[in-house]
Amino acid sequence: MLFHDLVIDKESPIYEQIINHVKHSIQTNMIAPNSKLPSTRELAQILGVSRNTVILAYESLEAENIIYTKKGKGTFITESILKRYKDRDYDSNQEIAWIIDWEEKANTYSKEAERMDIIKNEIPWSKDLISFKSISPDGELFDLEEFKRSFLNRLSVEGNKILNYGYAKGYKPLIDYLKQYMKEKGVSGEHKDIIVTNGFTEGFEMMMEAFTSPGDYVLCENPTHNTALRIMKLHGIKPIGVPMLEDGIDIEALRVCLEKYPVRFLYVIPSYHNPTGIVIGERKRSQIYEVCRTYGVPIIEDGFTEELLYGSSHITPIAALDRERNGVVYIGSFSKILFPGLRIGWIMGDNRMVSLLESVKRCKNIHTSSIDQGILYEYLQSGILKRQMKRMRKSYKERFELAKQCIEQYIEPEFIWGDGGLHVYIGLQDVSARELLQCCHKRKVIFMPGDIFSLDGSGEYTLRLGLSRVSLGEIEDGIKIIGECLCEIKKNRKN
Amino acid sequence: MLFHDLVIDKESPIYEQIINHVKHSIQTNMIAPNSKLPSTRELAQILGVSRNTVILAYESLEAENIIYTKKGKGTFITESILKRYKDRDYDSNQEIAWIIDWEEKANTYSKEAERMDIIKNEIPWSKDLISFKSISPDGELFDLEEFKRSFLNRLSVEGNKILNYGYAKGYKPLIDYLKQYMKEKGVSGEHKDIIVTNGFTEGFEMMMEAFTSPGDYVLCENPTHNTALRIMKLHGIKPIGVPMLEDGIDIEALRVCLEKYPVRFLYVIPSYHNPTGIVIGERKRSQIYEVCRTYGVPIIEDGFTEELLYGSSHITPIAALDRERNGVVYIGSFSKILFPGLRIGWIMGDNRMVSLLESVKRCKNIHTSSIDQGILYEYLQSGILKRQMKRMRKSYKERFELAKQCIEQYIEPEFIWGDGGLHVYIGLQDVSARELLQCCHKRKVIFMPGDIFSLDGSGEYTLRLGLSRVSLGEIEDGIKIIGECLCEIKKNRKN
Repeated sequence: MLFHDLVIDKESPIYEQIINHVKHSIQTNMIAPNSKLPSTRELAQILGVSRNTVILAYESLEAENIIYTKKGKGTFITESILKRYKDRDYDSNQEIAWIIDWEEKANTYSKEAERMDIIKNEIPWSKDLISFKSISPDGELFDLEEFKRSFLNRLSVEGNKILNYGYAKGYKPLIDYLKQYMKEKGVSGEHKDIIVTNGFTEGFEMMMEAFTSPGDYVLCENPTHNTALRIMKLHGIKPIGVPMLEDGIDIEALRVCLEKYPVRFLYVIPSYHNPTGIVIGERKRSQIYEVCRTYGVPIIEDGFTEELLYGSSHITPIAALDRERNGVVYIGSFSKILFPGLRIGWIMGDNRMVSLLESVKRCKNIHTSSIDQGILYEYLQSGILKRQMKRMRKSYKERFELAKQCIEQYIEPEFIWGDGGLHVYIGLQDVSARELLQCCHKRKVIFMPGDIFSLDGSGEYTLRLGLSRVSLGEIEDGIKIIGECLCEIKKNRKN
Repeated sequence: MLFHDLVIDKESPIYEQIINHVKHSIQTNMIAPNSKLPSTRELAQILGVSRNTVILAYESLEAENIIYTKKGKGTFITESILKRYKDRDYDSNQEIAWIIDWEEKANTYSKEAERMDIIKNEIPWSKDLISFKSISPDGELFDLEEFKRSFLNRLSVEGNKILNYGYAKGYKPLIDYLKQYMKEKGVSGEHKDIIVTNGFTEGFEMMMEAFTSPGDYVLCENPTHNTALRIMKLHGIKPIGVPMLEDGIDIEALRVCLEKYPVRFLYVIPSYHNPTGIVIGERKRSQIYEVCRTYGVPIIEDGFTEELLYGSSHITPIAALDRERNGVVYIGSFSKILFPGLRIGWIMGDNRMVSLLESVKRCKNIHTSSIDQGILYEYLQSGILKRQMKRMRKSYKERFELAKQCIEQYIEPEFIWGDGGLHVYIGLQDVSARELLQCCHKRKVIFMPGDIFSLDGSGEYTLRLGLSRVSLGEIEDGIKIIGECLCEIKKNRKN
């Protein structure tokens, strides 16, 4: 294609025109170093000239060291030639230094996204640290053999079809599985539909994108999931924090907020709330639902780590209370239990709502990876998850109970919140979590300071310890160090 | 967990409290049909009461047919009981019919996304149709064995790590591979970085989200890729169409637009342009670059089906002309060649720009599926793509040439545009593509009417035939039918 737009004219010798074309292509950078040229036979055919003319041109170019020939491989552009041309161009042409100022091009959205990016702004993970930052699942608890089997099975069932474009709503067998799965949790599928998303994050982002406008009020627990907070702010939403009590959101305060503001949504995390770890009981779930219903405000329920709850019987999601109505939007994900690297979540809600989201999804990324949906479907329907869950619950529970014990022993906190799951939330008496973190970091222990989850700068004296990626030994060592740092800070104060 | 918030008091008999709690849980829908209750032993332990008390409560509930016992399985909630409670509730409580009007909740974004959703608004594909609508790749050309091998290899190299959370920028080995890949196309990696996205669509959406504001002007070819057009409009951007000539965008018109408007970006598809199929030659690529440079306007280059171009040598992307500068943003994707179901694309551009996009990506979906990136990496580095490309080019070329021949024979169009790739673009003399489509649909043939790709309602007399998902036989039959429909329409007019 290098000779794609060379039109031979009758004004000058043809071989010269070929030489000039190659040189010009190099000068304008239209050709990469070590690019292969067509063979003399090919080029003669392309240009409709005699092969001898092409041979003449190539010989001349080779003499100038612009091209070189590898026996049996073909003819190529010399790399150094390109560099020579480029350098010359740089020297002779001032305006070539034209540079775009991407900082200036960035809009409020991207600037704010970066300003609030905790990965960029907090202490990064490194090997030598005991890190209580993460609440991602312990990869050792994944069943890789079953994962492989799921992949191979699904591929042999679907063939190449599953590798081509799929549907915006998601992979049909997975959607059907999830509908049944939600039904078993007591959530009616009547007038409801499901759309598969790239995890909870995309699900929440799509809800904000599709159903809110800048300036809207959205209620949420204070503190709450940092990513949700960030997404709301990026959409110009005014999040209003409802305080947490020891058993979850303060219903009276919720009522006051609903009375005071024209609220678009309530966003709530009923199970092992992030960051406090609180599980809202049945009675309070019912109260939340009823008060929102009274004010006609839809609820976005975050199914976060709900799966870790299940025993022989379980707490039903708030979505179950909604029955055949359409006021609760449930966003689910297995990312805290299975393979978060697959990025699969789902939104369950009103038919018409999901249909709108389908069009939104097509403008975002067309659909979620079909093969990933296929693997997850196969994995889930194999029934292995149920067996695995026992192991997971046991493993996470062990860490949680040890952590609680160590916290009481070494930290003497103002309060410990959390009913299990992947993390525990601590209140300190009079030492700020930031000050503590600074001290702990020196001793190679890090955690999440509570202010990250706060809407109003509160949470200064709180911290979240993620337990899912640390061993029992690290939990004991780490918490001991946190305790020692606390003592040190207090001691220094007295002096 | 059903008994999670039952607190036994001393006011009434304990067994009655258990009974009332179960009934209340059913009434408030906090329990799913056929849910398993804790065993009497378990519950006695949970509540700290005697086992006999629990047995008494269960017996009483069973007598009321509220629960039932399966020998050796446990005790469960009766399904019909739930229904009875629900129905009663429905009848007695008017306000229970509270319904959210999601139509009213939808904002401009979601309403417009739906209005412009061609999947919803155009004739859907069905088995009995010869459909020239699609330009997705022919799945028969995928190498499933190599795909499997890639999956298994990558999983055995990475283990469970690749199934856990990854980096927003993408999977490191894939990024490194793509940098090398771009280098081989002549694109300098100096001061540049790559972020992996969920396909081209997400890449383009992220660029608009991060670097434009409502009211901004973005130039593009007219006609252009429908999805890009939709995304621009959803972001409140004013897309300005630059007319196409037979060899690509009209440079003079481009210059006039750059002079006239404060332009944010130029969006351009240089190879097998969608929908016209035009490949822009080297000279014109250089002109596009230079004129944008003069006006200081960055270019977003869509690498769409560029891979189908490569012969023994190739046309370099516009990004190659940018050298060590930072004015061209290249969005690449293999989705028109390999596995679009995996949804993987990438943005290559200025370091600082990519760093901002990294924070944006974290607010969208954290990162693109790691296992999919791993599979693609393994597949690419196996070198199989190069071997496959020959087969693909041959297969698509065969279809393209047959289509062109049939169009000339049966349609006698005003023009045929397109240099190959996955589609061909036709201009009709005086029959609108919509009228033709209506007639063809009756005869089981469909295609994309050109107005879909147009910025200004032009393109009424044009249509795109996608060739990648139709057999040679279907191409001949389908185009013959289109020709017959054209004749019929013209004949009817004369009468």
